[in-house]
Amino acid sequence: MESNLSAKRLRELIRTRQWTKPTSGAAAGYVQANLVMLPKEAAFNFLLFCVRNPKPCPILDVLDPGKFEPYIAPGADLRTDLPHYRIFENGQLKAETEDISDYFHAGMVSFLLGCSFSFENAMIAAGLPIRNIEENKNVSMYVTNRDCRPAGPFSAKLVVTMRPLTPEQAVRAVQVTTRFHLTHGAPVHLGDPAEIGIKDLSRPEFGDAVSIRPGEIPVFWACGVTSQLAAASASLPLVITHAPGHMFVSDLRDDELTIL
Amino acid sequence: MESNLSAKRLRELIRTRQWTKPTSGAAAGYVQANLVMLPKEAAFNFLLFCVRNPKPCPILDVLDPGKFEPYIAPGADLRTDLPHYRIFENGQLKAETEDISDYFHAGMVSFLLGCSFSFENAMIAAGLPIRNIEENKNVSMYVTNRDCRPAGPFSAKLVVTMRPLTPEQAVRAVQVTTRFHLTHGAPVHLGDPAEIGIKDLSRPEFGDAVSIRPGEIPVFWACGVTSQLAAASASLPLVITHAPGHMFVSDLRDDELTIL
Repeated sequence: MESNLSAKRLRELIRTRQWTKPTSGAAAGYVQANLVMLPKEAAFNFLLFCVRNPKPCPILDVLDPGKFEPYIAPGADLRTDLPHYRIFENGQLKAETEDISDYFHAGMVSFLLGCSFSFENAMIAAGLPIRNIEENKNVSMYVTNRDCRPAGPFSAKLVVTMRPLTPEQAVRAVQVTTRFHLTHGAPVHLGDPAEIGIKDLSRPEFGDAVSIRPGEIPVFWACGVTSQLAAASASLPLVITHAPGHMFVSDLRDDELTIL
Repeated sequence: MESNLSAKRLRELIRTRQWTKPTSGAAAGYVQANLVMLPKEAAFNFLLFCVRNPKPCPILDVLDPGKFEPYIAPGADLRTDLPHYRIFENGQLKAETEDISDYFHAGMVSFLLGCSFSFENAMIAAGLPIRNIEENKNVSMYVTNRDCRPAGPFSAKLVVTMRPLTPEQAVRAVQVTTRFHLTHGAPVHLGDPAEIGIKDLSRPEFGDAVSIRPGEIPVFWACGVTSQLAAASASLPLVITHAPGHMFVSDLRDDELTIL
């Protein structure tokens, strides 16, 4: 069972290219992370952006320039242990690749940011539905009209994920996800999408649309894709990120991130 | 009543030098903060130090280079709105002053870090004793044998505050302070001081010793003084901090910092 893999074993499979697909659902219980790598000259301002916007960009680990072994996964190598990467040059997507050895250099700083997989496991454990999983789709993501706090050259609108729930389920979901403050925490909005600038729920900017059943309301959480928009906003010579859904799997357990 | 002052009014009194004493107990309910200012060349590594050590160094605000108006207190001026400052040169305490206008320059980056006053208010509200307040003393602070995670030139042993409580009270104190994860959060240790390298509770490195009554155990929380040791560890040409007890008073309310 893929969900029963240890994080270490999953990273080995990825490093040896026996695993090249998305990591959703694999190595269940281990914290998965968004990856952003960028030149050290921009690292202070990007770190500042994350600190100023902790809900979309919760910091799990920041490595020293040129380093690739994270504190949260000893023995791992960020250059080889993700199944798929994206390369941005001057803010434009230039390539998707399984191999970043031609790009990573000693002046690159790596950021690992929390991802909503952690709280999804907790929601499922609490008996709450995750519609995109039920429908075997990617989660719906929308760019809102809410500005993140900028830092130096970095700015972005807040990106959110959406999961439909009944109002009763929404209350329970607030309780369950509040504990996961390092993986986006409690929702940022619920109810009327227009209030945060979303015109049409059936047309998400990223991911897939899911069905909303009678009696359900949309519930919105801050999303790590915000960090990719911010990283691209600065027109840096080079930014490397994970490809959507192809996350870094750390040795942290979901429950280690909670404060309660 | 000093405790009834608004944060804004207290800052006005400080700016006009009508208030030059410690801020403990003043403007109750408003979040007070540790201040560290240092040259922008060192700012990335210091921010990294804080991110890697969130319990002693919880980040409330980080300003752009040369800026002195915090996001968490619009209209305030970090150069004039603290009652007392410390000036370090090459890691050595050089002066204590009420006026940093001769020192602050456009290349300085200001960090505001959480302080335990926030959770002390909550402890008092929960009927828990704060011995140093009862005895009209400064809280006892100790340098432990625990290493913080270093970042660039910054390193420090973890500094802790200690409050004596009965075991029952200690359990309640864990519950009460857990909510305040941006102001040091839950204790880092309780019971045997030797286990974290404290040889003699009657001889704190900073602050005053307090009496421990029969049936009480020492309970230890991470302390913001850690950030001052870290800032001094790098032998920078200039570091400016608040003087102990003379904190920056923000417009944030204690309860805004809690996640529950």
